[in-house]
Amino acid sequence: MFIGIVAVGSELLTPFYQDTDSLFITQKLNELGLEPAFKIVVGDDPSNLKMVLQMAIDRADLVFVVGGLGPTEDDRTREIMAEVLHKKLIFHPKILATIEARFEQRGMVMPESNRRQAYILEGAEVLPNQVGTAPGQWIEVNGKKIILLPGPPRELQTMFNEFVAPRLKIWQRGCLRRQVLKISGLTESQVEDLIKDLYPRDKDLKVTVLAYPGQIEIHLMSFGQNEEETEQKMFPLLQAFIDRLGINIFSTQGEELEEVVGQLLRHLKMTLAVAESCTGGLVGHRLTSVPGSSDYFMEGYIVYSNQAKIKTLGVPAELIQQHGAVSFEVARSLAENIRLKSGVSIGLSTTGIAGPGGGTATKPVGLVFTGLAHAKGTEVIQNRFLGGREQIKFQTSQKVLDMLRRYLLKIAGEKI
Amino acid sequence: MFIGIVAVGSELLTPFYQDTDSLFITQKLNELGLEPAFKIVVGDDPSNLKMVLQMAIDRADLVFVVGGLGPTEDDRTREIMAEVLHKKLIFHPKILATIEARFEQRGMVMPESNRRQAYILEGAEVLPNQVGTAPGQWIEVNGKKIILLPGPPRELQTMFNEFVAPRLKIWQRGCLRRQVLKISGLTESQVEDLIKDLYPRDKDLKVTVLAYPGQIEIHLMSFGQNEEETEQKMFPLLQAFIDRLGINIFSTQGEELEEVVGQLLRHLKMTLAVAESCTGGLVGHRLTSVPGSSDYFMEGYIVYSNQAKIKTLGVPAELIQQHGAVSFEVARSLAENIRLKSGVSIGLSTTGIAGPGGGTATKPVGLVFTGLAHAKGTEVIQNRFLGGREQIKFQTSQKVLDMLRRYLLKIAGEKI
Repeated sequence: MFIGIVAVGSELLTPFYQDTDSLFITQKLNELGLEPAFKIVVGDDPSNLKMVLQMAIDRADLVFVVGGLGPTEDDRTREIMAEVLHKKLIFHPKILATIEARFEQRGMVMPESNRRQAYILEGAEVLPNQVGTAPGQWIEVNGKKIILLPGPPRELQTMFNEFVAPRLKIWQRGCLRRQVLKISGLTESQVEDLIKDLYPRDKDLKVTVLAYPGQIEIHLMSFGQNEEETEQKMFPLLQAFIDRLGINIFSTQGEELEEVVGQLLRHLKMTLAVAESCTGGLVGHRLTSVPGSSDYFMEGYIVYSNQAKIKTLGVPAELIQQHGAVSFEVARSLAENIRLKSGVSIGLSTTGIAGPGGGTATKPVGLVFTGLAHAKGTEVIQNRFLGGREQIKFQTSQKVLDMLRRYLLKIAGEKI
Repeated sequence: MFIGIVAVGSELLTPFYQDTDSLFITQKLNELGLEPAFKIVVGDDPSNLKMVLQMAIDRADLVFVVGGLGPTEDDRTREIMAEVLHKKLIFHPKILATIEARFEQRGMVMPESNRRQAYILEGAEVLPNQVGTAPGQWIEVNGKKIILLPGPPRELQTMFNEFVAPRLKIWQRGCLRRQVLKISGLTESQVEDLIKDLYPRDKDLKVTVLAYPGQIEIHLMSFGQNEEETEQKMFPLLQAFIDRLGINIFSTQGEELEEVVGQLLRHLKMTLAVAESCTGGLVGHRLTSVPGSSDYFMEGYIVYSNQAKIKTLGVPAELIQQHGAVSFEVARSLAENIRLKSGVSIGLSTTGIAGPGGGTATKPVGLVFTGLAHAKGTEVIQNRFLGGREQIKFQTSQKVLDMLRRYLLKIAGEKI
């Protein structure tokens, strides 16, 4: 079966394009052992859109068309698809009522333009949109399946999981298993050196190493006739990687670092507070991105100015004068003081030079101290990160959360 | 002229794909006033590749084919293109000599497999590769131009700048100007209703509306013979949009909301502190993502627990008991107390239910109060946001920064 994906939207042809939707669909197809034969990106221009839809439908048996279902004048997927398939668009009063109710729920009146979203191709099934206004559509013409989906990633993903993926199961061609190992505390070449003799020769096994600032990922894939077979093929390889990389692996099921430390804190019934200087709130933001984080995350202080460090968190003014705000001593003081002041089990701290300005010969941009204070002592690490302001902030947050993870694992180990 | 881009490589169809090559080509085309009508990504599978190349050449007048020119067995662009065009592949001893010399220069012997890279389509011109082994090819068949380029970004970019861009100049259609208006405080349909009669009929002007949670963008493009003309064409449209949308436009030069409020704070010599509950540090993180933000951003309190709200920021316990932590009254108290405690000009606050848990019938997920305290009073807004936890956090940060922006604009206006 030939599968094609068409992504519609002029913005997708600009240099600012982020291709999340077709990546998501590809991943979902892979889980069923299916792969797209091609994907096409096309703008809103009606003649180009018509040409591309025509060519995709001519060539593929299953076509996903993503985007162009919004309420505005340049959302033309519905109309052009109707032309290409020689079908009428039918007005569905029920869909209109659902859209109106959505606006009402937010205390708003539905603008007239949203009416367009209640038109459905003659003969198409409606795929409900549970998190947005544009419904999806599933239509079969001359044995070909054509699926129209909304562009906003959250709407697309919810709709796909709920109404599209289950129907695709009948074409499942075996099984593709993917597993991602996430690693912190090692560089890409350190990881490569540790695992290079483990690369598989079996064509049904694939290993890809991806490097991000502050995080290395190993993507493992195995193909097989069924789940059991893919698991059997993957298992020895997975074990070998885990043996080799040990505690540096923080996640084997897709969890982010903030989720992993959250689970450990909850398990150990410990509480946390953070004192952030150079990260400016990012550590708190990441920790509180996890649902239920209020169980262990109590509070945070973004002590950005020296004055805030002194007045709010009681860092001695002389300490800053003597060593500078970006120093081992200030990181220690921040971690210890936030822990005591907030009455929590663990205090974390960050202080550094995120750049682009503010660097000197002895304290360059990227110099960052990360601290962790607990009941029996305080650890501070001096780091030197590369990259722009955002990368330095992110790597700092990653480092301090990784310190926390390693500390919590030690405590959990002692308790057994 | 219809322009198509085809990117070849199975890795490009995996979920980890980064589309840098076709973004580069798009940018280069834009500089000449040209736009691709579509781009297609296809894997190494010979039958899919043949189908896609055939369909691209059928439909477009100018086709860029990127990738699949390497030495390995899955590099099949040369052979498949020869089939599609019914052309022979001719061996070029000179190219082979260049490739061999390249290896020799690095003290290596050329592997036999690289021989394949010395085959050129009958009638094609060779585009030299100055930083790699695979040469590019430029062939014209039945008035269509087909350009084969290597996939590695550095090789592609060097070759494109040196040998492709100069030849494209003869099709230069003038100049393309792009400008983005970013809007907060209105929904996509509200924006649409305000501007729909302004959509240009001139085919040299294009308007695209993009909606993100908490932010709407209008992308304007104008084509012209030269820069002056594109500016003249864009100007009245831009002015009309600005007239219509007024203060709701927060950025016309690509700035983010945190940069805009930063510039205003610096200009007005005002200082800021934030008290964050449901945003958990995101407001501080965004504000401190701007270089130099330490000039006006003093500190932040992430008062996540009720205890922190009471102990750290002096919110009366009775207030929380009576109205709940997510209430108009607590948002006001947080904004006022952070302002006084930090000794700053303006205090901001957020308190809400980010979900997915914690909602009730009277206080559903997405209910958020945002507060702003200044010398002469306090504003609190009750919001109801839709979406998941991340979207609700982001929209909250967007809302409170937008309240700040509108307040600062008012102050700036009064000072004139």
